[in-house]
Amino acid sequence: MTTDPIPLQVKIIGIGAGSPGHVTADAADALRSVDVFVVADKGAATDELLQVRRAILDRFVPDGGYRFVAVPDPKRGPDAGRDRDEYGAAVRDWHAARADAYAAVLGELPEGTVVGFLVWGDPAFYDSTIRVVDAVATRMPLQVSVFAGISAIQELAAAHHIVLHEIGEPVHITTGRRLAGEWSPDLGTVVVMLDGALACRDLVERAPDLQIHWGAYLGMPQQELRSGRLADVIDELVATRARLREQHGWIMDVYALR
Amino acid sequence: MTTDPIPLQVKIIGIGAGSPGHVTADAADALRSVDVFVVADKGAATDELLQVRRAILDRFVPDGGYRFVAVPDPKRGPDAGRDRDEYGAAVRDWHAARADAYAAVLGELPEGTVVGFLVWGDPAFYDSTIRVVDAVATRMPLQVSVFAGISAIQELAAAHHIVLHEIGEPVHITTGRRLAGEWSPDLGTVVVMLDGALACRDLVERAPDLQIHWGAYLGMPQQELRSGRLADVIDELVATRARLREQHGWIMDVYALR
Repeated sequence: MTTDPIPLQVKIIGIGAGSPGHVTADAADALRSVDVFVVADKGAATDELLQVRRAILDRFVPDGGYRFVAVPDPKRGPDAGRDRDEYGAAVRDWHAARADAYAAVLGELPEGTVVGFLVWGDPAFYDSTIRVVDAVATRMPLQVSVFAGISAIQELAAAHHIVLHEIGEPVHITTGRRLAGEWSPDLGTVVVMLDGALACRDLVERAPDLQIHWGAYLGMPQQELRSGRLADVIDELVATRARLREQHGWIMDVYALR
Repeated sequence: MTTDPIPLQVKIIGIGAGSPGHVTADAADALRSVDVFVVADKGAATDELLQVRRAILDRFVPDGGYRFVAVPDPKRGPDAGRDRDEYGAAVRDWHAARADAYAAVLGELPEGTVVGFLVWGDPAFYDSTIRVVDAVATRMPLQVSVFAGISAIQELAAAHHIVLHEIGEPVHITTGRRLAGEWSPDLGTVVVMLDGALACRDLVERAPDLQIHWGAYLGMPQQELRSGRLADVIDELVATRARLREQHGWIMDVYALR
């Protein structure tokens, strides 16, 4: 007689936008329950981001008791231009390669191990962890739970003391690559993520009176905020962003337009 | 010689979607710093919501040391139909009346008092506290800070283990009153808040294959989740929502369509 193996418990934990203070009570409990944290080894990962992860674990799991397993991150192919289907296919190939790499690592762990994935911001917004874990779960039994975290979008609003929507109006969250093709005043407040080049520059002529609220390194000591009329502030913003990126070696930023 | 009075410190604190476990470390620190919590007295406020607030304060501020001031909530006029401008005007009038009521209460507090407003979910999403406090700040000096919280939108995604956007696609957050006029597949995943009547019923004929992820009482012990193809589940969902509302005396729900 055999019994079924106890599945791995996978906890996908949103750790907030960059400050240990963003961690929720539920996420802190989840961190304390983890045996093994799986981290993608991106090679050139920045020291500052690793330091935030360590600061979070030192604060909420001071007694340790966990270990890290690094998984080599598969190289992501070229994004194949701006075509939507090609972009989606490239991302899906990359997710599948990542799922293979994770499955190989998880397959070596003892049954019942509690496996943690630390996710910047909120796993529900522009992060691939849930999709990749779903793909792993087609290969082995996993018991999955997800913990929401404060996203950069929310920290942007809190830092600027703004409500994201106008009264009774919508909020639209999109990416830099989609912004110019998609923008319309009917969308309400438009929040732009994953924008490596301030694509809002392309809107200056069409909508110079848009107000922009921009933030970088949100929740971190080096946080920077700017706001103003798009046409008035865009040049200074482009220069500031380039300078900060040079100075820190990396940048994470997000902005809202309305 | 006179010195300027020390302004009141106002902390607008997102407490999450219904579970004390949603409270962030920064929000917990903020709760502990508050001298006076201002609460809107809505008369028929539900016991369950008051209990969640009490549970949060008991957990994070076990030593007490704070007090409550209830402010009678001005009656909100009729929403003046579905016209956008009339709706906005009605809401702005109500905000102004609320600001008057708050200013009267805050004006009585000793200088330097730390005043806390507890906000369900995140103050940046479909909540009026920031706007009302901004209006109060035009009448007296206030030093305002905002603490993001886990919104029902995020808890919906976490409970269903979903990423809100499709790969490379947008997320659109809107209200029940706008949904039927606004919906288009180009919007990406559409999240609907403040919907008292499951307005997605109006989309069944146009888009029967939409997938709906619905949740009520998110983060609470009585949490309910449903998902499926819109045309298949809508009738059962309408019946379920009516039954739950009857059973608990109130309902808070949110859903995503894609």
